[in-house]
Amino acid sequence: MTANGVFAVDPWELRETRLDLDGLARSESLFALSNGHIGLRGNLDEGEPHGLPGTYLNGVYERRPLPYAEAGYGYPESGQSVINVTNGKILRLLVDDEPFDIRYGTLHFHERVLDFRAGTLRRTVEWTSPAGQRVRIVTQRLVSFTQRAVVGICLEVEPLGGEVRIVVQSELVANEDLPAPVADPRAAAALRNPLVAEWSEADGLRGTLVHRTRHSGLRVAAAMDHVVDAPAEVATSAEASDDWARADVTTVLRPGERLRLVKFVSYGWSQQRSLPAVRDQVAAALTAARHTGWDELLVEQRRYLEDFWDRADVQLDGDAELQQAVRFALFHVLQAGARAEGRPIPAKGLTGPGYDGHCFWDTETFVLPVLTHTLPRAAADVLRWRHATLPLARDRAGQLRLRGAAFPWRTINGEECSGYWPAGTAAFHVNADIADAVLRYLDATGDREFEREVGLELLVETARLWRSIGHHDLDGHFRIDGVTGPDEYSALADNNVYTNLMAQRNLLGAADAAARDPARAGELGVDAEETAAWRHAAVAMMIPYDEALGVHPQAEGFTRHQGWDFAHTRPEEYPLLLHFPYFDLYRKQVVKQADLVLALQLCGDFADPDQKRRDFEYYERITVRDSSLSACTQAVVAAEVGHLGLAYDYAAEAALLDLRDLTGNTRDGLHIASLAGTWISLVLGLGGMRDHGTLSFCPRLPEGIDRLAFRIVRGDARLRVEVLRTGATYELVAGSTPLTLRHHDEEVKLDVGASRTLPLRPTPRLPRPAQPPGRAPARRSGLPGR
Amino acid sequence: MTANGVFAVDPWELRETRLDLDGLARSESLFALSNGHIGLRGNLDEGEPHGLPGTYLNGVYERRPLPYAEAGYGYPESGQSVINVTNGKILRLLVDDEPFDIRYGTLHFHERVLDFRAGTLRRTVEWTSPAGQRVRIVTQRLVSFTQRAVVGICLEVEPLGGEVRIVVQSELVANEDLPAPVADPRAAAALRNPLVAEWSEADGLRGTLVHRTRHSGLRVAAAMDHVVDAPAEVATSAEASDDWARADVTTVLRPGERLRLVKFVSYGWSQQRSLPAVRDQVAAALTAARHTGWDELLVEQRRYLEDFWDRADVQLDGDAELQQAVRFALFHVLQAGARAEGRPIPAKGLTGPGYDGHCFWDTETFVLPVLTHTLPRAAADVLRWRHATLPLARDRAGQLRLRGAAFPWRTINGEECSGYWPAGTAAFHVNADIADAVLRYLDATGDREFEREVGLELLVETARLWRSIGHHDLDGHFRIDGVTGPDEYSALADNNVYTNLMAQRNLLGAADAAARDPARAGELGVDAEETAAWRHAAVAMMIPYDEALGVHPQAEGFTRHQGWDFAHTRPEEYPLLLHFPYFDLYRKQVVKQADLVLALQLCGDFADPDQKRRDFEYYERITVRDSSLSACTQAVVAAEVGHLGLAYDYAAEAALLDLRDLTGNTRDGLHIASLAGTWISLVLGLGGMRDHGTLSFCPRLPEGIDRLAFRIVRGDARLRVEVLRTGATYELVAGSTPLTLRHHDEEVKLDVGASRTLPLRPTPRLPRPAQPPGRAPARRSGLPGR
Repeated sequence: MTANGVFAVDPWELRETRLDLDGLARSESLFALSNGHIGLRGNLDEGEPHGLPGTYLNGVYERRPLPYAEAGYGYPESGQSVINVTNGKILRLLVDDEPFDIRYGTLHFHERVLDFRAGTLRRTVEWTSPAGQRVRIVTQRLVSFTQRAVVGICLEVEPLGGEVRIVVQSELVANEDLPAPVADPRAAAALRNPLVAEWSEADGLRGTLVHRTRHSGLRVAAAMDHVVDAPAEVATSAEASDDWARADVTTVLRPGERLRLVKFVSYGWSQQRSLPAVRDQVAAALTAARHTGWDELLVEQRRYLEDFWDRADVQLDGDAELQQAVRFALFHVLQAGARAEGRPIPAKGLTGPGYDGHCFWDTETFVLPVLTHTLPRAAADVLRWRHATLPLARDRAGQLRLRGAAFPWRTINGEECSGYWPAGTAAFHVNADIADAVLRYLDATGDREFEREVGLELLVETARLWRSIGHHDLDGHFRIDGVTGPDEYSALADNNVYTNLMAQRNLLGAADAAARDPARAGELGVDAEETAAWRHAAVAMMIPYDEALGVHPQAEGFTRHQGWDFAHTRPEEYPLLLHFPYFDLYRKQVVKQADLVLALQLCGDFADPDQKRRDFEYYERITVRDSSLSACTQAVVAAEVGHLGLAYDYAAEAALLDLRDLTGNTRDGLHIASLAGTWISLVLGLGGMRDHGTLSFCPRLPEGIDRLAFRIVRGDARLRVEVLRTGATYELVAGSTPLTLRHHDEEVKLDVGASRTLPLRPTPRLPRPAQPPGRAPARRSGLPGR
Repeated sequence: MTANGVFAVDPWELRETRLDLDGLARSESLFALSNGHIGLRGNLDEGEPHGLPGTYLNGVYERRPLPYAEAGYGYPESGQSVINVTNGKILRLLVDDEPFDIRYGTLHFHERVLDFRAGTLRRTVEWTSPAGQRVRIVTQRLVSFTQRAVVGICLEVEPLGGEVRIVVQSELVANEDLPAPVADPRAAAALRNPLVAEWSEADGLRGTLVHRTRHSGLRVAAAMDHVVDAPAEVATSAEASDDWARADVTTVLRPGERLRLVKFVSYGWSQQRSLPAVRDQVAAALTAARHTGWDELLVEQRRYLEDFWDRADVQLDGDAELQQAVRFALFHVLQAGARAEGRPIPAKGLTGPGYDGHCFWDTETFVLPVLTHTLPRAAADVLRWRHATLPLARDRAGQLRLRGAAFPWRTINGEECSGYWPAGTAAFHVNADIADAVLRYLDATGDREFEREVGLELLVETARLWRSIGHHDLDGHFRIDGVTGPDEYSALADNNVYTNLMAQRNLLGAADAAARDPARAGELGVDAEETAAWRHAAVAMMIPYDEALGVHPQAEGFTRHQGWDFAHTRPEEYPLLLHFPYFDLYRKQVVKQADLVLALQLCGDFADPDQKRRDFEYYERITVRDSSLSACTQAVVAAEVGHLGLAYDYAAEAALLDLRDLTGNTRDGLHIASLAGTWISLVLGLGGMRDHGTLSFCPRLPEGIDRLAFRIVRGDARLRVEVLRTGATYELVAGSTPLTLRHHDEEVKLDVGASRTLPLRPTPRLPRPAQPPGRAPARRSGLPGR
């Protein structure tokens, strides 16, 4: 199922030109609006038909019990699921008493446009009611980046035939009926009526509903207010009950006349604050929004995005669809993270209920590299959220009989929600991933305040975890046994190379940070003995190597395991986890997602270029990409080792994953990490950027892409990189000090305002490596065999 | 908690001399009666007080859903739990209208005797009612070995003071209220009211109830009839309702008079047969029992046991408690297996609901060695049950994408019920354990009919499984990766030595058996290519070895794992699984139960004597015996490598596990495998018997035991072995052909009726190996340091 033929290719917007009712849930995800605080799925304004109604507030979840057929010590007893909160998007319309519903009457024209520069979703419809009244309806919706509690919707209706009586019913609806969930482990748990009514009110054209979640006890308030602009007399009324509030606007429009109604919706939620406090908070947000007004909200939104694109834009010549896709991706990454502010960025952002709204390692490993280089404050906010959950992570480490902090594999509020420990709690690498994100953020920004307040403690507590998980063996090697790396088709292996290298980085990074700020380190109980133990463990870290094959095993013994029988695996048996037992997957050489190859990207210094190429090609043959967290990594390392065409193909796969619904579950929400991976594929892949040690670039262009230009932020510096076949140009657009970077082996020092152009290196012509049969990425690169 | 002070030491019975109300559930397990078909816990006749009422029918279970917090391919969706069926044991007594209840009035005398030769539970009580009437009550109960559907109870009441009116209410009660289950993973799932009434009837002193289980749809019928012998006029009546039937007997007894009431109860159950068929079946069983009569049932029972002890008795001089314990153990092993006949032997036999009534590998590995050498028909019956479940095991293998048959880790009806696959389905060794039991049975009996009908197919299908689980690596080694061995504190390891050696034995045994019967093998699709592949895999089997330490790792890499921090593990933190996450247990060197050491027992030929001693001593230091499936194995190997005092200690631990409630869960049922392990400890341990290859003995006596004598069956031969300090005597008591055995390296050929006495070998005086702090077995051997 692809979304082909529904969307037009345009560099700055995603435009839908016809309505595909079967793909409605998918388009609701693609057209989702969010500021990281509030998320609205792209449901039709009139409420129905819908694929999956969705309004999400970051951090609002319901508890549910986690059952086990056989219980075990340390298993989490309760999980968290994101819930669909009070729906404030609904604007029902009656045309001469007939409800506007595109399933009835005649739909003459339909267009929805997600505008990456305006930050709005615009919809234009021309429709004739079953009784023959033709109207044009234009709506525009935004979730404000500048006023984070506010949603605005503008509805305009005009008759295209004779005079019509128009009724608009604007609603707040809590505890909506949701479609039955699909049987897919990646989907969400079903929770019916999670909201318990506390207070409701209607007054004039205002309405307010306050609820509490049944088990998690979070208070959620939603309020709406309206501004009506009509050519004739308007009758209004409002009422409210426990689970709904409604404001009605009635008028008569003659041909050439137009009704315009602006709806402001505000949300507030809290674990602790009282009902009056939360109720007043949403009233205040409404007042502020009304004061700003719809037109000014639009202006603010556009200005916010102008600034973002100025820091973050990626330009591609030669592939218009990929150009669109990378901006679509950046737009959604921005939406997921812009105003999360002390709350997590879930795997799906706030675009759908998939994975129960949980945040995983995806955030630090895939999303933060983008935010660190485009919107560093948002990256810091995520890590501040992690820091705020440190007490829970310390408790979890204690429960697991470990020291330091053990961050959860999946969570909303900071508590572990994983119900299958071999592919959950045992994936301790999440802790090194968080530390890695801290180190890269510090490296990019030099933010010493952050380091003192947040960064050092995160590094210290994760280093302590590693020191207590691993041990020195009789030969002095530091081993980390029985953990699960990124590849979810392996589990509980000894000395997973990715994990060990990332732990090494974590241990050294913590020791270095402690040395930079001994006073603060001392407050955290760190002494020289402890940092020495970290350094010793890091230096002695066991990195297994298969001498016979000349490659790194993903984990100790991996390369001696049986190969997967790809020849007898049918196409419909992917993803394998739905058709084969974990038992079989775990003990064979089959890789769900980049693991050793991700180590080559993130800690590549451990292998020389030839070794990297051998490793990459070995894992290409056995990696099936049943995870969306793989193509971008493969793109990066493919580009580095010289498989440029393949890198291009993987970049396109990452970029089009949701636009083409390649994994068949875009309905449950967008894959934010894969969207971020689009940027990673282009900037780290084709741009060859690396940010461990000196910032460096090894740019290259595959056939089919004639120009790549991107901008990144390093602290207060803004760097523009443009890659042409004739050379790469580095320009320090803004900043306070010169910036030093490397172009391949060459050091380049840029003054503010200066630029340097350097030649590209020739790319070797290597035979294209093989993937498992049927699992090669779709060819995007021009020439076969490249 | 021990049962000390409640039981008298006696070689042929377990006698309880006072009633410990707090230990009631435990004593109900110890006093359970069973014939392998029907099991009755030792509940008091009058029903209350009780610890845990229990009546079990082998194979009668209820289905229940198995929930998962995160589902996975191939996880069993439903489990099975043994249920407490219609209770036919109840005989309520009223003394002048006061109910006989030992919690009221005065209990002057209490005795319960489990008689290992009579096969009965006798109880004698003298009690004065709150109103002052003193009576003596004697009951005797049996579950018939000779009439497998029949239970008999004889009640005698006599007044010890004045004239009393006696009412006996004899009942059948279905869906009894059960105490709330304890939170212990080893206990059973709670199922309320599993029986749905189908039919009830009362007529004269007969009563019948027929039910069906709610989800599993098994039809269960229970019927009772009575024979009354009273000195005076007796009034009787009976009535029945859905869940109970009652027969009342009323009379007046004067001093010196006695009422005797015999109650016969019969049970029948079926998945398929109709209500009338099952109802008539229990009526027929009652008729037969009445025709036999109580006294003759007692005679039959005693005769059956005489024959058993003649084949199976073990005698010990010097340790009266252990003498009692080994007969108690053999009696319960007999009860568990005697008449199972095509049904499993559960881990708890039919003595309690522990482990949900499931059958595990315990049966083949611990129970069948005993039955094969004492009651070979019962051993064959178990394997015939496994054979009957082959279609399910083949289906399961197919579901797991394997060939051959994958027998369940835990089951009642043959379907996998394990809800945690790393310590369930992944423990594939159960398949080799079944094959091993087949090979040993064939070796002991030469039963070619069994081999043709059952044995060969079991060997072939398990060999196929191993061939498809394992693979030849680049060096040609045959590896078995990612499986779980016996030790449940490790999981998903590569090349577990126990598993690989047992698989090797399985593959060779299957190839040999196929060569013996090529015609039957051909019917099973076996050709020379396949058996050659089996032999090749077996010969190339990977057996890892740690050259640096000079020991076999339990699995590849095991000896490089971190040691467990025993010094900081507190006594109350055992069993470790209740206090530490699996994650921590799996990746460290801590062993729950004999694993490599069990390989030394079952496949010891792979290591020379010195290697065995080094291996044993290495694993002694890290084995915590949090499982009851360990002490006996440690006893056997300790004896072999020369640690005789330690062997004695472990033998005593296995023997007294339930009698002293060493694991604190005897309340949920007896540990049948550990009871069988008592015999293993003495016969394979002190007797040094091995039955792979030529039957051989290396007998030795620890200090404190002056004589050990035992009898075993080999086909139609009965061998008696007596070990004295002066020498070991082998006597072929009966048989049709001479028997060849080995005494150490010496071959001994015995004619029927002949005996040979040979000297014992001196035992080396070795320093006693260390166990983890606090985990040494209780000293039983006389001298410290031995």
